[in-house]
Amino acid sequence: MSGSDSPRAARIGRVRAAMQQAGVDALLLSLGADLPWLTGYEAMPLERLTMLVLPADDDAVLVVPQLEAPRVAEDPDVFTVAPWKEGTDPVAAVAALVGSRRRLGIGDRTWATFLVGLQEALPGRDWGVASAVTGPLRAVKDEAEVAALAAASAAADRVAHQLLGGDIRLIGRTEADVSADISRRLIAEGHQRTNFAIVGSGPNSASPHHDASARVIGAGEPVVFDFGGTMDGYCSDTTRTVFTGEPSAEFLQLYSVLQEAQAVGVQAARVGVTCEGVDQATRAVIDQAGYGAAFIHRTGHGIGLEEHEDPYIAAGNRTPLVSGHAFSVEPGIYLAGHMGARIEDIVVATADGPRPLNHSSHDLTVVV
Amino acid sequence: MSGSDSPRAARIGRVRAAMQQAGVDALLLSLGADLPWLTGYEAMPLERLTMLVLPADDDAVLVVPQLEAPRVAEDPDVFTVAPWKEGTDPVAAVAALVGSRRRLGIGDRTWATFLVGLQEALPGRDWGVASAVTGPLRAVKDEAEVAALAAASAAADRVAHQLLGGDIRLIGRTEADVSADISRRLIAEGHQRTNFAIVGSGPNSASPHHDASARVIGAGEPVVFDFGGTMDGYCSDTTRTVFTGEPSAEFLQLYSVLQEAQAVGVQAARVGVTCEGVDQATRAVIDQAGYGAAFIHRTGHGIGLEEHEDPYIAAGNRTPLVSGHAFSVEPGIYLAGHMGARIEDIVVATADGPRPLNHSSHDLTVVV
Repeated sequence: MSGSDSPRAARIGRVRAAMQQAGVDALLLSLGADLPWLTGYEAMPLERLTMLVLPADDDAVLVVPQLEAPRVAEDPDVFTVAPWKEGTDPVAAVAALVGSRRRLGIGDRTWATFLVGLQEALPGRDWGVASAVTGPLRAVKDEAEVAALAAASAAADRVAHQLLGGDIRLIGRTEADVSADISRRLIAEGHQRTNFAIVGSGPNSASPHHDASARVIGAGEPVVFDFGGTMDGYCSDTTRTVFTGEPSAEFLQLYSVLQEAQAVGVQAARVGVTCEGVDQATRAVIDQAGYGAAFIHRTGHGIGLEEHEDPYIAAGNRTPLVSGHAFSVEPGIYLAGHMGARIEDIVVATADGPRPLNHSSHDLTVVV
Repeated sequence: MSGSDSPRAARIGRVRAAMQQAGVDALLLSLGADLPWLTGYEAMPLERLTMLVLPADDDAVLVVPQLEAPRVAEDPDVFTVAPWKEGTDPVAAVAALVGSRRRLGIGDRTWATFLVGLQEALPGRDWGVASAVTGPLRAVKDEAEVAALAAASAAADRVAHQLLGGDIRLIGRTEADVSADISRRLIAEGHQRTNFAIVGSGPNSASPHHDASARVIGAGEPVVFDFGGTMDGYCSDTTRTVFTGEPSAEFLQLYSVLQEAQAVGVQAARVGVTCEGVDQATRAVIDQAGYGAAFIHRTGHGIGLEEHEDPYIAAGNRTPLVSGHAFSVEPGIYLAGHMGARIEDIVVATADGPRPLNHSSHDLTVVV
């Protein structure tokens, strides 16, 4: 193992220490963000295997298709490259690098087809997931990562400002058309890629992961917008709910509870508070107002190189927040088939308290 | 099991028959195209598990997060829906549906994290990949699927015509800028999504899976364009190589060999010929011209709901072509660090001979 003080070499060092503590002999990383976080290289989501073999006790080697090897910027302090030729077996190449190591951590998003092949080539091993090692490390962002998240959030906020400011007409357009519009604006504001642009109008506002559909947005409806993309590797993710006309008393009541719950959640997100503590704080407001059964998901998820990653702000997660944890606070209230709303900001836990990265207004805004 | 003659119910019937023949007791399908091919529903690529449990001997059940359940259009002839609530364990729900069934096929692109969890919940089972069952079935396209592939190819061809016709300026622009331009045009021509838009200029033309970079395209260079997207569920994929000025004698020689090899490959793609036979036909032309070592990948890949799927046109694949097989014929010649070229068309094997779906010119075209 070579020594170095490059940021990536430092990450590899922290990963090796965590591997030793967790009793993991080698990590096998393919799709997902662990690989670019450690090497700067992102595997192509195709049937030719790309896999970093990272032993706790030896140098890391990136097994990569020969025809993709020219894409890799080698970093001798971190890893070497082992291209495999078309017609040869990359699973066998990985297995040879693993050798007799027994306790293996497979990258969470690796395709099952490769894990099945590796298990055949490496019988009698203990298989766990790489995120057991990498998740807690990746969850704590350094200064440059927080700056990248803030820049992506600011780009998403510019689109939110356009929306709340009335620059995006809603009534009479289909959800899908407005969604495509939002996607274009995310790119125009600096994202390289749109990850999602949910537009849920009328009864569809009660479907949290609604696909923007051919439904034409009408007057006097709630519309939930949940959008984000990837900018310089890091993700944005924000949600705002607007009303296309004078809101009903029923919606105003629901929205004011939601607005309070979201603010309480952000304020609860202090260093030392557990993730489930933040979830409970948000949920208590909604429960007390009688909407408990209508808040059907957790309060939030970590964000970074991936749109959803550790730490999850959910019941059962007793991880205490530390400075550098970045995550969403996004309660929602959904009355199935009728109406719903959600408000979401990305927040970073800091020594000075919670730092929201999104700044567009939470006030209920009428957009037509 | 309910009976029905809907196209999806018919597919399920063929899958069950193939499962019985292969000795597979249940398929577990998540990400990837098997799920939408059978149910019309595409799993979200997120950490909440969506999985179809398809036993050979019982009804199929889609385990889906409660908050995504409103997205699913149930099809009682094909599957029922079992939403799981936030905070409960979807892996346990899948395991309960699998019961004592022993021989299991996991969807190829399922995240490893779910397979690791399922293997813990279901010890002592035999795990294989679902594509062993579904791959050969999905590889043979019906009439509607061929029409969808033809429509997507025609949309990609319209972008190729714009390129070859000089509508897209090259010299002085970065590869990344031209790539973004091509992506926009793919969408404008009817794709819902761009899957890739490779632009490899000068020495980058020798890197088959080159990322469009900040390199400024110069005069007198080869430029490889390989682009495609998804239109109404089906993929396009075509490659053309142009020259930004008067081509050198060296490049003209290389290109004429490539052009012949590609044409020979298409002509070889007849019903009854093996996939490796098509690869050999293409390769023989390049070998005989002395460029054999510079053709570093297989001749092609199947295409359909996924950009790469069965049948692979590669050495070792003795599957004989049947009517309805759809695949790329895309030889390339790469002189590392110097120059390269590739020509790619999608071809369907039919009783009347090979039917190319791409029709833009193969002649070496000068674009500035």
